[in-house]
Amino acid sequence: MTEKEIIELILPGLHTNGTVEVPAGDDCSVLKNSLSGNVRTVIKVDTVVEDIHFKPDESARRVGHKALARPLSDFAAMGVAPQAAMISLSIASPADSSWISGFYDGMNELARKFDVAVAGGETTRIPSGKCIAVSVIGFTGPDGYVCRHSVREGDALFVTGSLGGSITGHHLDFIPRIHEGIWLRENFEIHAMMDLSDGLASDLQSMLSRSGLGADLLRSGIPVSRVARERFRDTVGARQPIEAAMADGEDYELLFTVSPSQAVAVKDGWKKSFPDIPITCIGKISPTPGIRLQTEKGFEILRNKGFDHFEKPQDN
Amino acid sequence: MTEKEIIELILPGLHTNGTVEVPAGDDCSVLKNSLSGNVRTVIKVDTVVEDIHFKPDESARRVGHKALARPLSDFAAMGVAPQAAMISLSIASPADSSWISGFYDGMNELARKFDVAVAGGETTRIPSGKCIAVSVIGFTGPDGYVCRHSVREGDALFVTGSLGGSITGHHLDFIPRIHEGIWLRENFEIHAMMDLSDGLASDLQSMLSRSGLGADLLRSGIPVSRVARERFRDTVGARQPIEAAMADGEDYELLFTVSPSQAVAVKDGWKKSFPDIPITCIGKISPTPGIRLQTEKGFEILRNKGFDHFEKPQDN
Repeated sequence: MTEKEIIELILPGLHTNGTVEVPAGDDCSVLKNSLSGNVRTVIKVDTVVEDIHFKPDESARRVGHKALARPLSDFAAMGVAPQAAMISLSIASPADSSWISGFYDGMNELARKFDVAVAGGETTRIPSGKCIAVSVIGFTGPDGYVCRHSVREGDALFVTGSLGGSITGHHLDFIPRIHEGIWLRENFEIHAMMDLSDGLASDLQSMLSRSGLGADLLRSGIPVSRVARERFRDTVGARQPIEAAMADGEDYELLFTVSPSQAVAVKDGWKKSFPDIPITCIGKISPTPGIRLQTEKGFEILRNKGFDHFEKPQDN
Repeated sequence: MTEKEIIELILPGLHTNGTVEVPAGDDCSVLKNSLSGNVRTVIKVDTVVEDIHFKPDESARRVGHKALARPLSDFAAMGVAPQAAMISLSIASPADSSWISGFYDGMNELARKFDVAVAGGETTRIPSGKCIAVSVIGFTGPDGYVCRHSVREGDALFVTGSLGGSITGHHLDFIPRIHEGIWLRENFEIHAMMDLSDGLASDLQSMLSRSGLGADLLRSGIPVSRVARERFRDTVGARQPIEAAMADGEDYELLFTVSPSQAVAVKDGWKKSFPDIPITCIGKISPTPGIRLQTEKGFEILRNKGFDHFEKPQDN
């Protein structure tokens, strides 16, 4: 069985109750409670592992930054301000004070930037390597968040920043789009939003998965990053830039949909508020399931294989 | 440096803000927020690691139970009902569906018992072993929780259950004292409460650490578990039962203090509400720092060395 199949098996059996408004499966989970009236509690846990998400010789400071930045990026995708974080640091050398200090320095620097309190945590010994789980919590009103699956037919599809080549460093140093995500939610009727972690092709499939809808993308409109182009030019075996933009993971940009009537206003408002960050309308939500990439010659169909299985053109 | 010394170094540097009412260092952390008025959010993350907290061949079901039971025990120690849990499961074989199913079966069974929603989580690949971080969240009123350090001079010191020998199985199968902890908080002025995870001697030192106070215990009154006695009788090299009760970890019983004027009422009320669970007044809080164990021959002084460094009698 694949991981995804196992998760699909487990999800229906998880004990739940009436307090869970958004269960496992979105960027964050959302809880109600009988004491708080209309306030919603937003929570997320995210884990980074040595040799999977960072190399053993990576600087502790960058690891601390990344460990917190990832769950904060999920808050950005909900359009919710994070308030506090809890750290579970499992490490083979729990007496390595310089590594642990560096780790917390990187984490605290990002925490200060978004005023996220590091409210608790623990250090645990592990037989080998490092495993860091960061839980983040925030609060919002009853309509104060955006889910990832609520796309609507005809929506304009936007992406922030540029895509591909994150492995060269962006995945360790990115700044989560917290302010941008909140700004989008507060100023527009954002129908669906998520952060790009597995790559545009895979994540867009996830966004569409519960809707029965599809998407038409314009190949020439996909914002390919400079590093993805440089990597293709300089590195033997590197992906074509457009493939990198579609399939590379860990962009941590926002992918969102909005009514086409608001598309121009989103673009104009964004340029005034965030002039240094690109924003691109890459296509639209279609009633026809599947994802199609329009090219000068026709269109390509993205195959449903998830992360790093973006296929080369077959249909034209 | 020791782990404790590193943690002491890190704690003051953690970014915090006015929303943190109880920071890292207690059984759980407590948050306020501007939206919720008097409601407090209680959060805890706890991690179990293969080869440290359970053996590689341990049943997945028991591991799932333990992984959730530990943070729930911290909620018991605050006297707060847990509402939801988030699971971070890092595992070397993420496609091992039978292990993962068993793990979630054990976790869900306990979650149902206390109506804790399993609201989210993720499965991550790790190079070797297993590492599971569970975050739990609950809500309470502004005075609706008990901290671990707020002991007062003259308090009666109580412990639930019996102590020692947890390694024979209790550490995997224990039921966190959620109902008991909430009952104590709601019916009495519990001054300080914590759960016993590192052993009575070490945990009591932690409870006293910020007060400048000490404790006088009655050696004959320490509730030694049956398994600790059997283990000493049957196992070469096993600890003396009283040592096991003082120093063995993972009892997950509640240690609490209450005004001496309420001590008899606590004991009488407990016997009616929880007739199957022992409760014992093991001593009192003293103005003299340190922990003294009174015996028939005089008294012993507990050395300040933490977990599993309970010292044999030296003073009598």
